[in-house]
Amino acid sequence: MTASGPSFEIRTPEGEDRERRVCGQCGFIDYVNPKIVAGAVVADDLGRILICRRAIAPRTGFWTLPAGYMEEGESVEAAARREAREEACADIELDALLGVYSIPRISQVQIFFRARLKSEIAPGPESQEVRLCAFEDIPRATLAFPSVHWALDDWMAARGQPAPVPVMRTQNPGDQPY
Amino acid sequence: MTASGPSFEIRTPEGEDRERRVCGQCGFIDYVNPKIVAGAVVADDLGRILICRRAIAPRTGFWTLPAGYMEEGESVEAAARREAREEACADIELDALLGVYSIPRISQVQIFFRARLKSEIAPGPESQEVRLCAFEDIPRATLAFPSVHWALDDWMAARGQPAPVPVMRTQNPGDQPY
Repeated sequence: MTASGPSFEIRTPEGEDRERRVCGQCGFIDYVNPKIVAGAVVADDLGRILICRRAIAPRTGFWTLPAGYMEEGESVEAAARREAREEACADIELDALLGVYSIPRISQVQIFFRARLKSEIAPGPESQEVRLCAFEDIPRATLAFPSVHWALDDWMAARGQPAPVPVMRTQNPGDQPY
Repeated sequence: MTASGPSFEIRTPEGEDRERRVCGQCGFIDYVNPKIVAGAVVADDLGRILICRRAIAPRTGFWTLPAGYMEEGESVEAAARREAREEACADIELDALLGVYSIPRISQVQIFFRARLKSEIAPGPESQEVRLCAFEDIPRATLAFPSVHWALDDWMAARGQPAPVPVMRTQNPGDQPY
């Protein structure tokens, strides 16, 4: 529509108590909300875990679990199922809430489920490669994010339990930087 | 800065697979993400629950629990504590994750904790009145939102348990409209 992008300035809008990004051209106030990531630890009937090698930044080439940003109007569960479909062409069945991970440094709340694989797998556009991997063979040294470790650990701790107790984790300032 | 606000049109930006709000003046793409609400069921030493009568829309005059939108860079826990401070001048100590409520109709994920009251209470600017109320005396007919009922029910179900199992609830299309 126009060649130029928005030109934001940082100021406190009238009636507010903190600074926001406000566009100097059109006056739009860009409320930045924390984002919700939904994902799943997906196991097949042999107990192998679905992992995906990232084809996109950040952490291209590193391994992750199927997970991504929730879209408007979606439930958390629908978002987790959609991400498995998009990243690994996987049809999954959610079983239980596994963990809620709060990562203030990057303004994210990540919500992971335990799930069962119900289909074949194949790399989607955001994955270089997808793999079913025994828990002890997961390439821990080349995982993309700390929360991938958390979800895997929480899955292992709940293995065999029909109703796992979901774990609340919050990143502390002294932790491994995200 | 300018008198006019942004003028959004709905279209699919280049390289995307779905429609977004795009400003016709400056080209800004308004990614709308689901919002996270953090809140708490706060009890005093007598087991009475902190409830707040809303001074703001929506549902002005109805009763609610201290809860509100997370801010950028906040942990879920910090947001829940801040909301109790803002709405009831209450200093609280979080004890455990109580529930995660996904409400796709309004694109919200609400995260509630169990908490202990550590201070006096008084209405903040968003509350007409605050009250400590025995569980059986809570004015169920004039609660502001369905999720207030859910959080209270999940608190009651976990009463006396040192480690409650957090409940995942998702609004179904047939449920009471939000």
